[in-house]
Amino acid sequence: MSSFLDLPVVPFGAARFGSDGTTDHVVIEEPLEIRINSRNIAITMRTPGHDEELATGFLFTEGLIRGADQILSVTAAGNQVNVQMQDCPAVAPRLTMTSACGVCGKESIDHLYAAGCKPCPSDSFSIRAAVLQGLPETLRFAQATFEQTGGLHAAGLFNSECELKIIREDVGRHNAVDKVIGGLLRSGLKPHLHLLLVSGRASFELVQKAAMAGIPMLAAVGAPSTLAVETAKRFNMTLAGFLRDDRFNIYTGAERILC
Amino acid sequence: MSSFLDLPVVPFGAARFGSDGTTDHVVIEEPLEIRINSRNIAITMRTPGHDEELATGFLFTEGLIRGADQILSVTAAGNQVNVQMQDCPAVAPRLTMTSACGVCGKESIDHLYAAGCKPCPSDSFSIRAAVLQGLPETLRFAQATFEQTGGLHAAGLFNSECELKIIREDVGRHNAVDKVIGGLLRSGLKPHLHLLLVSGRASFELVQKAAMAGIPMLAAVGAPSTLAVETAKRFNMTLAGFLRDDRFNIYTGAERILC
Repeated sequence: MSSFLDLPVVPFGAARFGSDGTTDHVVIEEPLEIRINSRNIAITMRTPGHDEELATGFLFTEGLIRGADQILSVTAAGNQVNVQMQDCPAVAPRLTMTSACGVCGKESIDHLYAAGCKPCPSDSFSIRAAVLQGLPETLRFAQATFEQTGGLHAAGLFNSECELKIIREDVGRHNAVDKVIGGLLRSGLKPHLHLLLVSGRASFELVQKAAMAGIPMLAAVGAPSTLAVETAKRFNMTLAGFLRDDRFNIYTGAERILC
Repeated sequence: MSSFLDLPVVPFGAARFGSDGTTDHVVIEEPLEIRINSRNIAITMRTPGHDEELATGFLFTEGLIRGADQILSVTAAGNQVNVQMQDCPAVAPRLTMTSACGVCGKESIDHLYAAGCKPCPSDSFSIRAAVLQGLPETLRFAQATFEQTGGLHAAGLFNSECELKIIREDVGRHNAVDKVIGGLLRSGLKPHLHLLLVSGRASFELVQKAAMAGIPMLAAVGAPSTLAVETAKRFNMTLAGFLRDDRFNIYTGAERILC
């Protein structure tokens, strides 16, 4: 399945790489409706492809399922994916989370504990600094569509031998991560033996998803946020940012980085 | 109000620009609870600052209010903003939008029509190509925090004389746009005489917000998506992408660009 369409453009200045000057490869964005037992749970704007994994990863990282074994079947058709389960879980999306005293970062983190998220083990994963620096190039090389559209985020799951086990792309960075985590759940790979690399920034949402999946390290080509750092710290994760130009910063969990 | 915190880091390789090697400026991300008449409407992860504008812009671009004059008062305190209105509108967020036959891009666009969004006039705004090319530099120059944190999206509202009237930054690109639109609504500026420039990509969500506000042109430093192009076309907007390196593409509405 192609993840882009050729659309007509009027270019000013030189033609962009991957464009013939009159058309441009434009990344596909379409809504996906996620259903459990035919009941609408959520709609996300995504790039079509790996929709079963996206739904599985989304339900898991949002705390609606505790594992892939709760799912009887997942069927994707067009812009709809239906997840069959024994029982439909009570849906309490974060959107409707309320608090008499206002919300704060601490409550967002507590919400993850309530959803069953646990701190990562300290000794399951480590990586050499020099090896870590090479991973973005591996991800980029495996990322087929970005070069053509400039419009896709990538997320990749690497093991401690730096093998890229799963890579997914999407117009939404959270979807790329949900697709990887959905793939991870369905693969039988062990989350605590892997790191997740994302092509963009590390926001709270991405750290939250990695934490829910039990992945002990998140590395980002871009910047982290304060709440991302705080969340990674609380779940004993390693968070690396600005992994580019032969350098990176470790914001928490530096003991997993070997010199 | 500062939009970043200095957090300790362990750097590998050269210190990042703006960092002293042991700490790094990290962009603040915290939840904001948006309430109408003390009722929780939504929670968004945002960078604190201009919260009243963010709430106003969010309610408007989501179709919950038709104008700033429906709002009696907006009060921000900590991570909560309360909007006082005569009546609390019925809340039907897109999250719960359902359809018997699945969803598609066309329905997402129809949803905007239902929310009162109208096609833009053809003749209210135009800009010279050479002038358009200079706008990202103006935005970047006015963007105080990005250089320091690398973690903020910017959105800027320009008039046809290329004056930057409103600029807002946020960890979330949709929030930066909501802050600009909230500021626009409160300023009395005329949307149809302006263009919106965003520092990142142009997704459906951003085109939707510009369309709801009646801004006839969206220019993005990054890539558009197919649904962004289709939505801009349907609302008679101009959509420019890849506005960088002395070039850009017009995906629809090229008649507003003068050579």
